[in-house]
Amino acid sequence: MGGLAIGSGGEFVVMAGPCAVESERQLLRTADAVAAAGARVLRGGAYKGRSSPYSFQGLGVEGLKLLAKARERTGLAVVTEVLCPEDVSVVAEYADIMQVGTRSMENYSLLAALGECGRPVLLKRGMTARLEELLHSAQVIAASGNPNVILCERGIRTFETATRNTLDIGAVAVLKTVSHLPVIVDPSHAAGVRSIVPMLARAAAVVGADGLLVEVHPDPEEAMSDGEQSLTFDQFREMMRDLRRYVPISRGCEDACLRAFAAEGAAK
Amino acid sequence: MGGLAIGSGGEFVVMAGPCAVESERQLLRTADAVAAAGARVLRGGAYKGRSSPYSFQGLGVEGLKLLAKARERTGLAVVTEVLCPEDVSVVAEYADIMQVGTRSMENYSLLAALGECGRPVLLKRGMTARLEELLHSAQVIAASGNPNVILCERGIRTFETATRNTLDIGAVAVLKTVSHLPVIVDPSHAAGVRSIVPMLARAAAVVGADGLLVEVHPDPEEAMSDGEQSLTFDQFREMMRDLRRYVPISRGCEDACLRAFAAEGAAK
Amino acid sequence: MGGLAIGSGGEFVVMAGPCAVESERQLLRTADAVAAAGARVLRGGAYKGRSSPYSFQGLGVEGLKLLAKARERTGLAVVTEVLCPEDVSVVAEYADIMQVGTRSMENYSLLAALGECGRPVLLKRGMTARLEELLHSAQVIAASGNPNVILCERGIRTFETATRNTLDIGAVAVLKTVSHLPVIVDPSHAAGVRSIVPMLARAAAVVGADGLLVEVHPDPEEAMSDGEQSLTFDQFREMMRDLRRYVPISRGCEDACLRAFAAEGAAK
Amino acid sequence: MGGLAIGSGGEFVVMAGPCAVESERQLLRTADAVAAAGARVLRGGAYKGRSSPYSFQGLGVEGLKLLAKARERTGLAVVTEVLCPEDVSVVAEYADIMQVGTRSMENYSLLAALGECGRPVLLKRGMTARLEELLHSAQVIAASGNPNVILCERGIRTFETATRNTLDIGAVAVLKTVSHLPVIVDPSHAAGVRSIVPMLARAAAVVGADGLLVEVHPDPEEAMSDGEQSLTFDQFREMMRDLRRYVPISRGCEDACLRAFAAEGAAK
Repeated sequence: MGGLAIGSGGEFVVMAGPCAVESERQLLRTADAVAAAGARVLRGGAYKGRSSPYSFQGLGVEGLKLLAKARERTGLAVVTEVLCPEDVSVVAEYADIMQVGTRSMENYSLLAALGECGRPVLLKRGMTARLEELLHSAQVIAASGNPNVILCERGIRTFETATRNTLDIGAVAVLKTVSHLPVIVDPSHAAGVRSIVPMLARAAAVVGADGLLVEVHPDPEEAMSDGEQSLTFDQFREMMRDLRRYVPISRGCEDACLRAFAAEGAAK
Repeated sequence: MGGLAIGSGGEFVVMAGPCAVESERQLLRTADAVAAAGARVLRGGAYKGRSSPYSFQGLGVEGLKLLAKARERTGLAVVTEVLCPEDVSVVAEYADIMQVGTRSMENYSLLAALGECGRPVLLKRGMTARLEELLHSAQVIAASGNPNVILCERGIRTFETATRNTLDIGAVAVLKTVSHLPVIVDPSHAAGVRSIVPMLARAAAVVGADGLLVEVHPDPEEAMSDGEQSLTFDQFREMMRDLRRYVPISRGCEDACLRAFAAEGAAK
Repeated sequence: MGGLAIGSGGEFVVMAGPCAVESERQLLRTADAVAAAGARVLRGGAYKGRSSPYSFQGLGVEGLKLLAKARERTGLAVVTEVLCPEDVSVVAEYADIMQVGTRSMENYSLLAALGECGRPVLLKRGMTARLEELLHSAQVIAASGNPNVILCERGIRTFETATRNTLDIGAVAVLKTVSHLPVIVDPSHAAGVRSIVPMLARAAAVVGADGLLVEVHPDPEEAMSDGEQSLTFDQFREMMRDLRRYVPISRGCEDACLRAFAAEGAAK
Repeated sequence: MGGLAIGSGGEFVVMAGPCAVESERQLLRTADAVAAAGARVLRGGAYKGRSSPYSFQGLGVEGLKLLAKARERTGLAVVTEVLCPEDVSVVAEYADIMQVGTRSMENYSLLAALGECGRPVLLKRGMTARLEELLHSAQVIAASGNPNVILCERGIRTFETATRNTLDIGAVAVLKTVSHLPVIVDPSHAAGVRSIVPMLARAAAVVGADGLLVEVHPDPEEAMSDGEQSLTFDQFREMMRDLRRYVPISRGCEDACLRAFAAEGAAK
């Protein structure tokens, strides 16, 4: 992925961006801001699986093209979710990393299709999957021909209601012990509220996670999904500054930084 | 489905058969036995999603053909799982009811594809899906053009280890209150051990469930999957006799009964 | 207990009454009504452990005296909760059955104190206790000198929010297999809403439970606690009528019945 | 507590020691070692609530005296569990901090009795208590006259089996936001296996916890309880060294250190 190595024990790789790609302006502004702050990968959903026929379905191929445009502009790699085997080839055409969402962790036809896509796969833990089940799904992808799997802990479903899910920080420690695969953490879905996202990110950094997957939005209040757990640009920058105390993180692209500030200024 | 109405408030419809279609002999013997005992639908997996590339994958189309053969012979309707959108049309060619497994409850591309299959859909609750999420998935199918959805409670994942899952019997009562859809119960996956399956089946019968989905195998010890939770023919017959005290169940086909006994005799 | 045998395989014993003893009028009216409908045991809390210093603490000894008065009047046995070792002797003076609440299942000093109280103990399962832990607590009581323990399944804590707890109906089946102790079910706390209490009670009856513990209140809307899960007198009578289709239940005391109706008439 | 302030935002306070006080030699050796490494509080159970009548019950008052002896020798404060209201006064005589165990979080008679004990209370979260319930229990203690409550997150019960419990690291972040009370973390019970204890301790340190409660034993393989989750002296020292990178921790008592090494040498 253009010189980017996740899980090599070197850089702590931060993937950031909106839950859903909503528009060119929303995506490019976010890409600029997260690149400036030190992210190395842009996240953004073009296909939204959780939607009913009555709600926002994602921009589809149009969204993929916007992600590619943002990559060109910022140098960020792109991670985006693929929902079904039919979409694997089109998503692989635009994305650098193929994301398997929580609801798809045991979608074996999808996992098998990803075995031949030629891209690394970011595999999110199912909402109540045991770690052995997560590792089993990783093996299914590997056995289909693709050993480049990145595991993602994103919180599990429990009885607690103060947070959307319960981040299983011990899972990261266990996975790093029993598996050689890179492990990243999604503090946004674990928390469900943005105020504690930076704390969960810190915890991930010190227990040995290889990176993060974080939701960032130019205007969380207006986000089409997951707004309440998305960080603003300022909050993201502050989180990145804070994380550098614990792990090596890319300094961020100054040019992109300037462009982002300019874009933000122009937007006011 | 050939005069079979599930959820009409009349007959309590029992669907029974092996976890996986393993061979012609295994399937036909089971079909005979469950038909004789009063089942109206034959269950059996032709595609096995939970398998790794190294384990049994199911017989595929060959399995579907065996199911159709068993239907011809016994008059049972056929329910079988479909794992991905690509398989919907071939499964719909052979099956009377399309099953969406626990791991696929939020596989929205599959749900959407089932909207146009022209067959009723048996939708199993996700391992830790809330009831509102189960109903949401049912709506996705309905919104895609198929209102014939049968909900299936099959136990949820909890901390308890004495059973494989925890049958949420209250879910049946709630679903019958808030939805007009038929609700059936899978006591086999809820229990995980055959000894308590008949008790869970009874509970399902009296709280208003419209039927059951039960695993039955000629020789559970030799089953390729889920053997420990499969009933023997004798246990299934006894369970059906017991359930007739609580709900109206088909008497069973005497001819099939005789054939089944003959087949069993010949097998010894 | 005056000829009452729980778990003998004969009568299905229903224990009913308000969550908390609130007043003489409330308790006696309820006792009359549940006795008339066939309950054999009156439940009612005199000590309310869940309360903060700012909320209703229960009537204490005064409540125990009212329970004893209701017993004299109706012939019902009395079950009531004891919260701490210091209260064991005073509660044992008035109650026929000593209840250990969900929050106290692992209060070992309480369990030990109950070993010498000379009364049967109704032991409620902890909110997320495994069955082996419930049985362990029963053994602690037995080992302290009191083998008369009644186990109570009352729903466990899960992620589901449609019900207050998830009734683990399979637990009843398992407990009846692995233990010789009587098992009763509390459908009120499991449900959390009265509408599905009768369905859960039915399920309990057919899976082999030896009885029920049910909340009933003259005016649930005005109850000081647990009103939303308490049955009205009419709902309780209807539930009892329904349950007689499945299990042998006492016919109810006609005299008490008449008194109850008279009391209700006078109250209007 | 002799100049020790927990939750003041200054020092990160580590409480360490064996699960149970087993003998003078075991306790003093451990006290020396943890003091030398920078612990400020000695933990050790004199009363063991989880035991059946057939297993080790703890040394009782004898154990309390040993804890006091260890305090004299090392300068460590002492935290130990109290199981019932009757024991509050004797425990308060010897302990600096009164521990309420997981199983007692909702033992309201115990909580009320602690209101008047004149000692800070370390309140452990119940095995599946929601945070609002933990805070409610803290309020019960406070309302009884004792505002000095230290909250302890120790892992919650989930479906995951790779760890004994699931450390809810987000709970620490939430509690620090909504409450002014100090919050500590017990990584030993959360993990259940010693290998990941240091990682969980790190996570606790960086999310804002005010300290730790850790199990340490001279010879974990021989421990009478919780051996598999107890750290050795070496592992504890290494963990403390590691934690100093993140939070201010006492340097440890050199004299005690020398004594500890001497004691260990003599023991070989």
